[in-house]
Amino acid sequence: MSGVVHGGAPDVVTFGETMALFTADTPGPLPHVPSLSLGIGGAESNVAVALRRLGTSVAWVGRVGADSLGELVVRELRGEGIDVVPVRDESAPTGLMIKERRTADALKVWYYRAGSAGSRLEPEDVPDDLVTGARLLHVTGITPALSPSAAAATHHAIDLAREAGVPVSFDLNYRAALWSREEAGEQFRRIMAKVDIVFAGDDEAGIAVGPASDPRELARRMAAEGPSQAVLKRGDQGCLALIDGKEYAREAVPVRVVDTVGAGDAFVGGYLAELLGGAEADRRLRTATQVGAFACLVPGDWEGMPRRSELHLLAPEDPVSR
Amino acid sequence: MSGVVHGGAPDVVTFGETMALFTADTPGPLPHVPSLSLGIGGAESNVAVALRRLGTSVAWVGRVGADSLGELVVRELRGEGIDVVPVRDESAPTGLMIKERRTADALKVWYYRAGSAGSRLEPEDVPDDLVTGARLLHVTGITPALSPSAAAATHHAIDLAREAGVPVSFDLNYRAALWSREEAGEQFRRIMAKVDIVFAGDDEAGIAVGPASDPRELARRMAAEGPSQAVLKRGDQGCLALIDGKEYAREAVPVRVVDTVGAGDAFVGGYLAELLGGAEADRRLRTATQVGAFACLVPGDWEGMPRRSELHLLAPEDPVSR
Amino acid sequence: MSGVVHGGAPDVVTFGETMALFTADTPGPLPHVPSLSLGIGGAESNVAVALRRLGTSVAWVGRVGADSLGELVVRELRGEGIDVVPVRDESAPTGLMIKERRTADALKVWYYRAGSAGSRLEPEDVPDDLVTGARLLHVTGITPALSPSAAAATHHAIDLAREAGVPVSFDLNYRAALWSREEAGEQFRRIMAKVDIVFAGDDEAGIAVGPASDPRELARRMAAEGPSQAVLKRGDQGCLALIDGKEYAREAVPVRVVDTVGAGDAFVGGYLAELLGGAEADRRLRTATQVGAFACLVPGDWEGMPRRSELHLLAPEDPVSR
Amino acid sequence: MSGVVHGGAPDVVTFGETMALFTADTPGPLPHVPSLSLGIGGAESNVAVALRRLGTSVAWVGRVGADSLGELVVRELRGEGIDVVPVRDESAPTGLMIKERRTADALKVWYYRAGSAGSRLEPEDVPDDLVTGARLLHVTGITPALSPSAAAATHHAIDLAREAGVPVSFDLNYRAALWSREEAGEQFRRIMAKVDIVFAGDDEAGIAVGPASDPRELARRMAAEGPSQAVLKRGDQGCLALIDGKEYAREAVPVRVVDTVGAGDAFVGGYLAELLGGAEADRRLRTATQVGAFACLVPGDWEGMPRRSELHLLAPEDPVSR
Amino acid sequence: MSGVVHGGAPDVVTFGETMALFTADTPGPLPHVPSLSLGIGGAESNVAVALRRLGTSVAWVGRVGADSLGELVVRELRGEGIDVVPVRDESAPTGLMIKERRTADALKVWYYRAGSAGSRLEPEDVPDDLVTGARLLHVTGITPALSPSAAAATHHAIDLAREAGVPVSFDLNYRAALWSREEAGEQFRRIMAKVDIVFAGDDEAGIAVGPASDPRELARRMAAEGPSQAVLKRGDQGCLALIDGKEYAREAVPVRVVDTVGAGDAFVGGYLAELLGGAEADRRLRTATQVGAFACLVPGDWEGMPRRSELHLLAPEDPVSR
Amino acid sequence: MSGVVHGGAPDVVTFGETMALFTADTPGPLPHVPSLSLGIGGAESNVAVALRRLGTSVAWVGRVGADSLGELVVRELRGEGIDVVPVRDESAPTGLMIKERRTADALKVWYYRAGSAGSRLEPEDVPDDLVTGARLLHVTGITPALSPSAAAATHHAIDLAREAGVPVSFDLNYRAALWSREEAGEQFRRIMAKVDIVFAGDDEAGIAVGPASDPRELARRMAAEGPSQAVLKRGDQGCLALIDGKEYAREAVPVRVVDTVGAGDAFVGGYLAELLGGAEADRRLRTATQVGAFACLVPGDWEGMPRRSELHLLAPEDPVSR
Repeated sequence: MSGVVHGGAPDVVTFGETMALFTADTPGPLPHVPSLSLGIGGAESNVAVALRRLGTSVAWVGRVGADSLGELVVRELRGEGIDVVPVRDESAPTGLMIKERRTADALKVWYYRAGSAGSRLEPEDVPDDLVTGARLLHVTGITPALSPSAAAATHHAIDLAREAGVPVSFDLNYRAALWSREEAGEQFRRIMAKVDIVFAGDDEAGIAVGPASDPRELARRMAAEGPSQAVLKRGDQGCLALIDGKEYAREAVPVRVVDTVGAGDAFVGGYLAELLGGAEADRRLRTATQVGAFACLVPGDWEGMPRRSELHLLAPEDPVSR
Repeated sequence: MSGVVHGGAPDVVTFGETMALFTADTPGPLPHVPSLSLGIGGAESNVAVALRRLGTSVAWVGRVGADSLGELVVRELRGEGIDVVPVRDESAPTGLMIKERRTADALKVWYYRAGSAGSRLEPEDVPDDLVTGARLLHVTGITPALSPSAAAATHHAIDLAREAGVPVSFDLNYRAALWSREEAGEQFRRIMAKVDIVFAGDDEAGIAVGPASDPRELARRMAAEGPSQAVLKRGDQGCLALIDGKEYAREAVPVRVVDTVGAGDAFVGGYLAELLGGAEADRRLRTATQVGAFACLVPGDWEGMPRRSELHLLAPEDPVSR
Repeated sequence: MSGVVHGGAPDVVTFGETMALFTADTPGPLPHVPSLSLGIGGAESNVAVALRRLGTSVAWVGRVGADSLGELVVRELRGEGIDVVPVRDESAPTGLMIKERRTADALKVWYYRAGSAGSRLEPEDVPDDLVTGARLLHVTGITPALSPSAAAATHHAIDLAREAGVPVSFDLNYRAALWSREEAGEQFRRIMAKVDIVFAGDDEAGIAVGPASDPRELARRMAAEGPSQAVLKRGDQGCLALIDGKEYAREAVPVRVVDTVGAGDAFVGGYLAELLGGAEADRRLRTATQVGAFACLVPGDWEGMPRRSELHLLAPEDPVSR
Repeated sequence: MSGVVHGGAPDVVTFGETMALFTADTPGPLPHVPSLSLGIGGAESNVAVALRRLGTSVAWVGRVGADSLGELVVRELRGEGIDVVPVRDESAPTGLMIKERRTADALKVWYYRAGSAGSRLEPEDVPDDLVTGARLLHVTGITPALSPSAAAATHHAIDLAREAGVPVSFDLNYRAALWSREEAGEQFRRIMAKVDIVFAGDDEAGIAVGPASDPRELARRMAAEGPSQAVLKRGDQGCLALIDGKEYAREAVPVRVVDTVGAGDAFVGGYLAELLGGAEADRRLRTATQVGAFACLVPGDWEGMPRRSELHLLAPEDPVSR
Repeated sequence: MSGVVHGGAPDVVTFGETMALFTADTPGPLPHVPSLSLGIGGAESNVAVALRRLGTSVAWVGRVGADSLGELVVRELRGEGIDVVPVRDESAPTGLMIKERRTADALKVWYYRAGSAGSRLEPEDVPDDLVTGARLLHVTGITPALSPSAAAATHHAIDLAREAGVPVSFDLNYRAALWSREEAGEQFRRIMAKVDIVFAGDDEAGIAVGPASDPRELARRMAAEGPSQAVLKRGDQGCLALIDGKEYAREAVPVRVVDTVGAGDAFVGGYLAELLGGAEADRRLRTATQVGAFACLVPGDWEGMPRRSELHLLAPEDPVSR
Repeated sequence: MSGVVHGGAPDVVTFGETMALFTADTPGPLPHVPSLSLGIGGAESNVAVALRRLGTSVAWVGRVGADSLGELVVRELRGEGIDVVPVRDESAPTGLMIKERRTADALKVWYYRAGSAGSRLEPEDVPDDLVTGARLLHVTGITPALSPSAAAATHHAIDLAREAGVPVSFDLNYRAALWSREEAGEQFRRIMAKVDIVFAGDDEAGIAVGPASDPRELARRMAAEGPSQAVLKRGDQGCLALIDGKEYAREAVPVRVVDTVGAGDAFVGGYLAELLGGAEADRRLRTATQVGAFACLVPGDWEGMPRRSELHLLAPEDPVSR
């Protein structure tokens, strides 16, 4: 879009691999599923959608192949109003994943991302001025696991942000298919030492700072690594956070779960949107919890992310307003 | 149909606007929904279907456009065995509504009914002899909100029925998109003064006779306006009625809810079918409650309405009878 | 419907077996087809739909089982505005057929009609006053092949019509799955001797009156059996008729064929509608040809039958009228 | 397949009628369901699939028509790696059934199996050496209800197995559509007297040995008829068994039920797979219970049957493992 | 997107009404169509998509409602990389249209656009600097027919462009549902007097400058009204143009037509993209013809528009390149 | 399967990579396609299906991953009655391809087969006794392009067959995505020198023996490399062959093409089935041509392959046989 339409840089910058996503239309083993729907998915772009729908301007950077699935990734994110900075990689295909709904409650996910365009992200792919002009940089623990160049891109962007005084948030997002817990733990600690906000699940936190049965202990250890805001996403157990030395906890919003994938990214989006809006910690966690719960009510990783005006549907007075 | 097939006039006459209804095939925001199913919906025709399936003969009167959606409305109702008295309006389109299943639990409904054929109903559209020959006239609070001529048609039919000694039932059915609570309340009271049976939800009753926390108080106030039978439809809280001065209450049948839309109309159909069959108040409310519960078990506003022989499926001994 | 709505008897009466019809949604062998659509089909009800859409009132009589597929048959025909006189058979299921689209151009049809409700039609099932009050009785050569009682019903109705001065039309509709050419030929001749109008394809005419390479010879022989109107339906070769001793011929309307099933029934409907409207032979054949061509443009046996106002779409000036 | 690929006879042999199965794609009365999916179903082949997926080699014998639905039956079972011994019957069609999902919780099933190929099974259809070479023969109470020749085939195979020292398992599987409780009870007792393992639901056991409120009493009575292993499948109440004179009981695995059809067959498959694997009674019942629960989590009678490696998904630590 | 990402104004600016579009998934009368797909359509946005895919930057301006269908319009166009300048109208709904595929060859289109947000476009909605900063303004004859304010917006933008030296192109796009031929003709002439390029079909040209059997005469008359480039789009008869006083003609590319809707807009996009790229008239018409033909090969008004790299698929050497 | 069921070795043995295949359900760019169907595809397994349906026993050998797509490949081929000899590769995923139907006439195919299980085929994977016990070995030019080990497997199997006196057929099947024309040409010639039958398209033959405008020249040159049977598959131009020194030619069967993919494999299957059945060259080519034409009439690479009893549907006397 032209300068006529937008003014200035986006508030949040994020980057990573977004893949094409084939989702089985019905539960059951793949050989018995007659059709699949085609969409996209990626932790960072999920967060970007959550932020955008809540009113925060956001840019997403990533590599895609010079193929139709790459066009799909760009098209879907642009459609959301995200500033997409695609790097078209002529030498590698867009990664893809297949979601098999093996039962009504359990997924199998099959990846075709080895050597993908998205995994070939390089430090030069992320425009410096985007990062330094932003109000927040968001990274995840997936990107450094993709390739050495992607890991370098992550550190380069974090260092750039720090120098420019741009706060950095980091979601551990451990992916067992990409690396071992040991490799991940070491990298997580390296990154945590340089960021302001860290998000993790209980198990992920354990990878980074050693397992502990008490989530408050996990939060304390994460904060001890550097971040002033350490937030534990605990699913249907709510969340717990240590923010500027003070402890916060919140129960989950009870919902009839349809699809939990993307709920963690929704939570992060909710938290960061409120943070950038100047809200207090309590409210950040409340909105994060609501947005996370909302995302569980719609199938798809990110398609159901709420606008602010929709959050009231979590507890509709009348399920049908005619 | 010929006189060979049917004899005499239908037991119940009702009229109103029935619209084409596009329902999203999957939950999620409309921009992410790949397909929608096409059907029809209207409170009065929903009641007509419920009655017909329970064995009561019924006529439905309404205006539709000279278009394919109008043909759809007529076709679906005729298919149900309802005596359809369509008025084809060459100058206005059939109204339509779109059901967005924003989440698995919350709908958004979008209307295109302003100036629709259905809203142009006139007093002359309802055949006098149909009304005077019936055993019951059923009207709703939607029709008077559609247009002055539709309001006039409502009062004309009620007056005609009263003169002919035909009892009248009235479901408040408040639609916030059509008028204010104040306008509705005044009209509701005008109609209640002339009818024998009134149905309402707690909130709707409050619009008509002022809010009250005790539903028995609401029933009493409604009965005080004129009707000898005042019935409160209270969803998963069951129902409560003041019938010929005596109070009745009933709990809801517990079901795994799939779609609540149309459940209120199903309840009304169950009640009226039993009334015309000569059943006592207790049994009317029991059947009403069962039919309402049944309607929640199938998607669609009216498609799932039960036949009498199907009511036992509410509590099947064996979910599969082979 | 009540006498208020309709007056008098329908113009045309027909009867026969209408079955549930499962149609493969995509071409290919059934084991590779993921889904099928559920509809209905029957030669006589197809003609009834064609007549009704062209403005002729029509009654259809037939047996169906006390099952959901029987409800479907009744529902679809009632939806079309046909006077349905269903006989519910508690002892036999509704027949069904499966349409396998083995290739894009060739069907396989599988029948489950042995012992079906529809095949148990009896003479008493067809109301006498419906037949004697009609302006035309239409029968096919399928019904006498279903069972002895169904054959008896056919002759009973024809005799009744003749006595009452009601003209009878007869479409040979040979079904190889039901009987031999010899059995059929004998029955065909017995019926032809008693009817006024006969329709046949070239091959069917050959079954009845002996094969001949010249269609005019076939028409002459058919007329020699009794009918004053003998009409040969010749598909993409048009039609040829001997009407009141005079020969008529007409070319087919060239169309991009989608589905030929039902085109013959459409042709018959077009002819009879014009006949009852008082049109000359030329016009009957023209409309028959148009309606037959139109039916080839839409998938489904009868769903695409045209209204009069739609016939111009056969040769649209502008394929999209906005 | 060649001797190169497989060696020796299958461990389990079973036979019976497997039909084509049309399942409504959405809940609601059939006339309102736009499409159905085509699959297959049969109690014995369901057990065969359960066994095969758990690693047991198995042969299935049955008659199918010389039609596309017969090809479907053979194709689906072969696809599972089952040794299919089809008898093609040129004179009768493959049976079919239609699953109407009348509500979200209650099915109606419509059968077209009278005179079907499958019901014409004869004693000669089951290869003697398959039975005598197996480690277990599994029969159900459906087959003897299909026809006298099918009943004869059942007894012939059982007798053959007994003579050869091959143990026999028997699942009562009462089908009310096929015979009376009295007829069934007598036949059940005749078979029970000759088998080693018997499976039944509480009500089915009552048909065979007289109703009793205490399931332990039912198990005792069944064992008294002959079988050394009497197992009661009790759905969400778990299971109870009398095995070699010792009583065992087990609670059901709590799951969010999607489709209970086939769960009983899954249970039987789980039990028999463990038995053949040499497991103790406790473990047989545990696996049976797990496999039965698993089958409830996927739509379809058998498509969701688990492999051993999938049983852990019953209680996933993380619903999405990426 | 931010100024970081894009620099400068888009090359082409266009505006108009883009509506939600429900397209029947199968041919047949709407009452028999089980599902519809949801998309968008609008002549100007179709041209914008064609231009964007051919590499030209483009901005689209239009009003949409504050509803889900408005979000859909914005989302789809943004997804294409178009600079969308939406005006959200809180007081009116997004217009919609329904495409009934009455036969395989003929559409019926039903409009719900009276009083729509899109029809309420006002002169102030189109940013002045967008127009004056562009290299071309494209308008159609639909917008002035929507409302007086939309007509005013059209003239305002044209005048602004002319003053700024920005060339203007105009596609007559006559819509019979919106106004009479006389009203349209007068308005067309008023606009033609002020533009540089005019596109029309033969019939549309006749509305503007009087009917003529010779298309060259039509082109001459159009050019005589002012435009230096008058281009006749003649469907499967190719095209004919009078450009800077010289006549050009071109045959259509023969294709197996799937859907002609949008082909005219594709043609215009092809012509304008080449014009802005500095191509000669011959090449403009060749690309226009190719892009128009390509659009006929894919269902949907604009979804199939080609990229430059795809034009070779019009005549693939090998239909499958593996 | 057990020795009871099958006796002896399969007539034909083939091997290669069979991949999962996602096919867009509707034409259009992938980002606009709402769903895809999941199947499988591979040139060698396509030939195997064609052979099996024509009555020839056949074994297929190939590597698949230990994943759901690998199960799909095995399941589909087993379902066809093919002796599947799967090698499960725990270290690599099953390859996949995506068929984008860019227009109604042109495909784009996207591959994810680099490093796939199928490409890791090794000489030891193909059981020696399968090859030496067969009546024919069929190989393609795809396998040697997959990897050095797959090329070695190809040569190993050919050498084994030659030593055992088993004839070998070879389809060039050039895949531009896998290697250059030069690399392919060299390998093609190496294989041709050792086989008895060779199949190629005109362009493929040119790769192997140098381009020539006269197909007879191409056939002569191919035969000169060694094979006694050189067959040119020429699509809608029919076929041309040099068999035992004699030239044969045949025109294509004219059909309304739905999907040409797999037609070449169908042709090969038809030829080889007749060869093994002892038919003369003329008849081999006639059946090959028919089977190839038939395959064009059904969507899918192999699903539509005909049985012998279905070949008459190529020119049905009556498109619907009821």
